[in-house]
Amino acid sequence: MNWLRPLAAGGCRVSFGGQHLAPSCALRAFAAHPQNQVAEGVVKLQQPKAQLGTDEGKNNFILKTPKGTRDYSPKQMAIREKVFNTIISCFKRHGAEVIDTPVFELKETLMGKYGEDSKLIYDLKDQGGELLSLRYDLTVPFARYLAMNKITNIKRYHIAKVYRRDNPAMTRGRYREFYQCDFDIAGHFDPMIPDAECLKIVHEILSMLQLGDFLIKVNDRRILNGVFAVCGIPDSLFHSTCSTVDKLNKATWEDVKNEMVGKKGLSPEAADRIGEYVRLHAGGLGLIEQLLQDTKLSQNKLAREGLGDMKLLFEYLTLFGIADKISFDLSLARGLDYYTGVIYEAVLLQTQNAHREEPVNMGSVAGGGRYDELVGMFDPKGRKVPCVGVSIGIERIFSIMEQEVKASKEKIRTTETQVLVATPQKNFLDVRLKLISELWDSGIKAEMLYKKNPKLLNQLQYCEDTGIPLTAIIGEQELKDGVVKLRVVASREEVDIPREKLAEEIRRRLES
Amino acid sequence: MNWLRPLAAGGCRVSFGGQHLAPSCALRAFAAHPQNQVAEGVVKLQQPKAQLGTDEGKNNFILKTPKGTRDYSPKQMAIREKVFNTIISCFKRHGAEVIDTPVFELKETLMGKYGEDSKLIYDLKDQGGELLSLRYDLTVPFARYLAMNKITNIKRYHIAKVYRRDNPAMTRGRYREFYQCDFDIAGHFDPMIPDAECLKIVHEILSMLQLGDFLIKVNDRRILNGVFAVCGIPDSLFHSTCSTVDKLNKATWEDVKNEMVGKKGLSPEAADRIGEYVRLHAGGLGLIEQLLQDTKLSQNKLAREGLGDMKLLFEYLTLFGIADKISFDLSLARGLDYYTGVIYEAVLLQTQNAHREEPVNMGSVAGGGRYDELVGMFDPKGRKVPCVGVSIGIERIFSIMEQEVKASKEKIRTTETQVLVATPQKNFLDVRLKLISELWDSGIKAEMLYKKNPKLLNQLQYCEDTGIPLTAIIGEQELKDGVVKLRVVASREEVDIPREKLAEEIRRRLES
Repeated sequence: MNWLRPLAAGGCRVSFGGQHLAPSCALRAFAAHPQNQVAEGVVKLQQPKAQLGTDEGKNNFILKTPKGTRDYSPKQMAIREKVFNTIISCFKRHGAEVIDTPVFELKETLMGKYGEDSKLIYDLKDQGGELLSLRYDLTVPFARYLAMNKITNIKRYHIAKVYRRDNPAMTRGRYREFYQCDFDIAGHFDPMIPDAECLKIVHEILSMLQLGDFLIKVNDRRILNGVFAVCGIPDSLFHSTCSTVDKLNKATWEDVKNEMVGKKGLSPEAADRIGEYVRLHAGGLGLIEQLLQDTKLSQNKLAREGLGDMKLLFEYLTLFGIADKISFDLSLARGLDYYTGVIYEAVLLQTQNAHREEPVNMGSVAGGGRYDELVGMFDPKGRKVPCVGVSIGIERIFSIMEQEVKASKEKIRTTETQVLVATPQKNFLDVRLKLISELWDSGIKAEMLYKKNPKLLNQLQYCEDTGIPLTAIIGEQELKDGVVKLRVVASREEVDIPREKLAEEIRRRLES
Repeated sequence: MNWLRPLAAGGCRVSFGGQHLAPSCALRAFAAHPQNQVAEGVVKLQQPKAQLGTDEGKNNFILKTPKGTRDYSPKQMAIREKVFNTIISCFKRHGAEVIDTPVFELKETLMGKYGEDSKLIYDLKDQGGELLSLRYDLTVPFARYLAMNKITNIKRYHIAKVYRRDNPAMTRGRYREFYQCDFDIAGHFDPMIPDAECLKIVHEILSMLQLGDFLIKVNDRRILNGVFAVCGIPDSLFHSTCSTVDKLNKATWEDVKNEMVGKKGLSPEAADRIGEYVRLHAGGLGLIEQLLQDTKLSQNKLAREGLGDMKLLFEYLTLFGIADKISFDLSLARGLDYYTGVIYEAVLLQTQNAHREEPVNMGSVAGGGRYDELVGMFDPKGRKVPCVGVSIGIERIFSIMEQEVKASKEKIRTTETQVLVATPQKNFLDVRLKLISELWDSGIKAEMLYKKNPKLLNQLQYCEDTGIPLTAIIGEQELKDGVVKLRVVASREEVDIPREKLAEEIRRRLES
């Protein structure tokens, strides 16, 4: 029943026997002709598909963006640029360079890096040549870039869209095409100094964006490894147990335990032992000390290393003055396979609602960790470049800020135009064209209406509507006198300015 | 011989009978075992493909970006950002808003828009759900956006990557993934005013980028239509004749004529008649008048309209003071189907070489035109929104600027770091961490080496290597005195600054 798919997929309208029908009608029409063979139906239904976009079938499809994606309107772009500028200024404050990589990679580059999530990768069609996939994150392309260029030492940021065939939840900011803002430090350095800087960056960005209270959870894959080991989980189940524990964020312990036992093949006793550990959270140095004294866990070499580094990390975070926002949380696991050390995730806390006493977790807005093995997976000789980084999940932040702007009814300008060149006279198009050209050439942001003879009222109204602060009015008298009437839109104040001083005057007024 | 493809595609190394061999060896090994059936060979050769990226096969593939794509290094990004800033500031000077659209569109959205070039569209694999393609330009997504949101009036820019499965020529800046910087004006306006502004924008951008001399060729699809009509070409061959004429840029008239007659089915006489017209170029108002008096052409309604508008356009360009860089050129046709009126293309002229008298065409760096029907193709009721726009072809500009930077041996900084926090003392990591944190919190761009005990010489050397202008040195004495030693890297001058005044002093020194 291959021919049904285009209908099920997204509701393309189809043409049947020359008539244009909605999908359900087409099916009914088809059913009403029992003499039709399925094979015939296939041909007829496929015909309009081939015609789509041609003159005959031009309006014959649903007008939409692909599932899980969206356009950004000028207003949304204004918010997006504000958020990006905040983030980029933070990355630059920490001395980062910037790189860019292609939107797709060789399929092989992405394979074996994302564990269970690999099924969410978008593949390109095989049109001859290489097999390609859209990037799933910016971390794997970064590791590929380092190995390919034999770079052993870099601090870079990368802001770009990534692609996941996940179930979209667009109201909560979960899209199939979404931005990541990544900052990573690669190189052999003394322990936990770059790691602490990554957390400092998350703290700076979330503070500057003024999104309300937040909490950064940290854990270490080595500690988790130790916990799983003392609970009797074999190494082979490490990654899959991590991705189950990671669900504790959204699911109850009961559900997580059921998945461990039912799907992942852990014994109920092992799961219960894990449960005792991973429910230890909201800790700091105290919890670290407690675990260092845990008789079983302290026997485990990896756990000991992880706990030692966690202690160091908290020392550095205290020097940075941000330890109060950081919580050592054994239930944090992160889904991706490539983490090898410290991991972290920032969540926004909703405290506005007075009826709730406990802060509510509004979901993760940043995450990251240490991945010391990933570059080695790409290096022909397996040479390792230790890396640690953080990714800011910007879409949820956009959603929150858009809602805030809507609620505040703040008027957002979508252009930077400083002046509208206007005239009260008929047949003054050439004068306006000459004047606006002079302003553009002097670096002034200027617009004019694309009409031969616009009404003055319409010109002034355009300024009001779009927030242009000044109008430069030129008519017969001004032309004769060699001046331009500069009108302040807000105050309606008008003053004649010598034409050759106009650009300077506009600049002076808008800078003061 | 399906199993040969992975070898031909891009040189994946393959494993054969347990041995890792280069592709040619694998083929020889296969040939040396005549008892092998092809089917067996398929299985064995495909095995390592499935393993790629897993632990066993991890280094078993070529480390590269996909064909026709590239990474941008921090140095390249610094050049790219400079070019983008120039272009964006121009678009904003002309009052443009900005939008963004997804990197892929429904396949149907792109179908029937690009004529012969449609074969170059990248399709995504059908993984269930909608059929998707990567965007081929920013114009069709823009038209889809307008129709979908019922927008009848907008001036916007959009800077994003587009995708074409073309033959890459990377040294000449031709990639499969490349940036377009588009500016478009949509709406019902008086003739040629927005069109003239698009040309003004091209002129401003190419002047500001200082790429040397340039020329903007203009023509009109209506004039071409008239020319073809009076030469006896049927309407049905219009688009395909346009795309042949468009090759005149790179091919001789002889070759173009051969394609018209041999491939497109024109009579040799019709082709010759076209040849007489399209070889009329490098004209301005004079050529327009000449064609308006052409007895045959002036009978054609579309041609008359086109010539009348072309005259108006040159009037406006003269008011803008840029007519000397614009050339009315009947041989300009542009490849894309959707243009309906004025079309243009900017080329850089190479005059540096004293041996050549004629300026050499270095290829197109911007192009565009009017497309009044495209939005209507998406609107359910076919409502038209007239549009005109221009696309800056940034990749060739990047290539030229990269070559210039290389030739000039100019040192490009890839970070904006203002100060390195350093120490001459051992065990001063905590002091450095505290000081750098204070600087970051005061908005200073600061770095430190990620070592517990770095040598002072290495810290100073790092400043020299990366162009950091200042070093903030803190040792035992400074700590005791509550000061920081601020060192100017270039002059080696050192001065003690009270710690609480450090940020202010750094800012003062770098702004003056």
